[in-house]
Amino acid sequence: MKYEGKTVLELGERAALAQTISHFKPVASTLVGSGDDAAVMSLTDPRFVVTTDSMVEGRDFRLDLSSGFDIGFKAAATNLSDVAAMGATPISLVVALLITKETKVSWLEDFARGLQAAIDQLAPTAAVVGGDLSLAEQIVVSVTAHGDLAGKDPVLRSGAKPGDQIAIAGTLGKAAAGLDLLLHSDKTLAASYPELVGIQLRPTPPIAKAIEACANAMMDVSDSLALDAHRMAKSSGVQLRINKADLLGYVAVLEQAAQSLSSRDNRAIDPLDWVLFGGEDHGFLATFAAGLVPAGFRVIGEVAQGQGVLLDGANLPAKGWDSVSS
Amino acid sequence: MKYEGKTVLELGERAALAQTISHFKPVASTLVGSGDDAAVMSLTDPRFVVTTDSMVEGRDFRLDLSSGFDIGFKAAATNLSDVAAMGATPISLVVALLITKETKVSWLEDFARGLQAAIDQLAPTAAVVGGDLSLAEQIVVSVTAHGDLAGKDPVLRSGAKPGDQIAIAGTLGKAAAGLDLLLHSDKTLAASYPELVGIQLRPTPPIAKAIEACANAMMDVSDSLALDAHRMAKSSGVQLRINKADLLGYVAVLEQAAQSLSSRDNRAIDPLDWVLFGGEDHGFLATFAAGLVPAGFRVIGEVAQGQGVLLDGANLPAKGWDSVSS
Repeated sequence: MKYEGKTVLELGERAALAQTISHFKPVASTLVGSGDDAAVMSLTDPRFVVTTDSMVEGRDFRLDLSSGFDIGFKAAATNLSDVAAMGATPISLVVALLITKETKVSWLEDFARGLQAAIDQLAPTAAVVGGDLSLAEQIVVSVTAHGDLAGKDPVLRSGAKPGDQIAIAGTLGKAAAGLDLLLHSDKTLAASYPELVGIQLRPTPPIAKAIEACANAMMDVSDSLALDAHRMAKSSGVQLRINKADLLGYVAVLEQAAQSLSSRDNRAIDPLDWVLFGGEDHGFLATFAAGLVPAGFRVIGEVAQGQGVLLDGANLPAKGWDSVSS
Repeated sequence: MKYEGKTVLELGERAALAQTISHFKPVASTLVGSGDDAAVMSLTDPRFVVTTDSMVEGRDFRLDLSSGFDIGFKAAATNLSDVAAMGATPISLVVALLITKETKVSWLEDFARGLQAAIDQLAPTAAVVGGDLSLAEQIVVSVTAHGDLAGKDPVLRSGAKPGDQIAIAGTLGKAAAGLDLLLHSDKTLAASYPELVGIQLRPTPPIAKAIEACANAMMDVSDSLALDAHRMAKSSGVQLRINKADLLGYVAVLEQAAQSLSSRDNRAIDPLDWVLFGGEDHGFLATFAAGLVPAGFRVIGEVAQGQGVLLDGANLPAKGWDSVSS
């Protein structure tokens, strides 16, 4: 640990960046990597997919709850899932990182390791190919991710058709449960549920399953099942009908955590609320022609003519995360 | 002005974004624009160029000196110039914007107009195709820009060859002079030099000239001629020899501003310092085989075997802007 204890400010931007970049692995599609005015990536197709998302200290993460590794991992995972939600294979990330005067070089390296670990685990076809480092009042990570459609049509949220089956890949509600556990004053709680807390800190969207899915419509569930289902219903001009019975498997794995929290706080926590209204799992909500739901997706309802989202026939409110007004 | 006086927080993220997006024009290469998990752009070539750069309130701009329009314009211009410095045609921008609780909807709209104005003026082939809006302690704009190489090889900073002529397109030193004028306690000074201040606030890199240039090596002069020339010399494994006489034209147009500042502060300001060590003009530093310098570029020296950067035979220090340590 050559730079133990040193801040990025003390070391200087260029030296710190050189140290950070050493944690990133190139991929074959990187024609020109970091170090020039811009990077150049090759595709199999003369189109590319692009998405951007920011995580802000104090709003999207807290430095006492998330390590640099966690923040890097989550920043990569959330953007990779947006690319995969289009049916595209992730190929590159660029990272605009704001750090503070207090940020240590060791934190920056840990952050870089987390970014690369998410890529290795979730989308090894991708590489970090560029970035920008600036000083600010708080840490902010803005990742822009790119994907290759490899000859396929992009999968839009507007493609859901009446008669389709609605299906989910990945977890639902675990990230929200993990957040409630992390934020609880009884710090032993988080330690008792490492899987739920782990998914909040380092979500693991099933990227490969989304890319292979050939869905009629697909999106990444970032803000909540309810809110994102409303967005899909609106974009597609259809009604999404979700069956509570199909959500019971997601609810069951959260029961024990809900009971632990309920008993400590003397209030009833319904784990179905995490499943319906909790965000940040970054799984995939998709619709498929009846009978064509692939392995890795679990059916939770069906698409009908009409509008809005129903849960067992009743209107499901569009509750979830709004990055500005929440 | 429907939202006069309202903050983005009061209006809500989604409504404010909808209002903002209305200022952006699509282009033919936008296959899928804002509103899905990601955008999809078409290229003429299965490669793309990507670069990212951030501007931080208090470090890269001040809200009392730059309007929202200025900040949007500059954020677009600086990233478009990085794309063009690769010889690529800009096609898309995505914008991760941090605003504060106090930011007005009218500021956001002004910012969006500035982004689109820079695109219209400098690179009308490009479009804003995505973004992200979050609340933070200060305003930060992180733009990621993409370009299409249209069958050409990317122009790298590593391609300078002994015998090449060194040339500049765009202004040199005007942005730095404009900054000194803007920061002076005598506020009448800035008003006396609208062109210099204008280039600091809204730089106008000659994007089209850079794209057409067919240089051996090229880069955007963002941090200073001296510092960026050192980077090119190092990447290319050559020596850059700059002739002071070739810089006199850049110096001459700054003389009067230097005298105005010098007389007010009772200290000598040498406008050559702005030309050599001032950044933010975002012109282009390029090298061309002897005799092949295109129109719009002005020769300032020649490439030789060796290393480093000389000015009239003497070592030129690598002074300029460092976004973290400055």
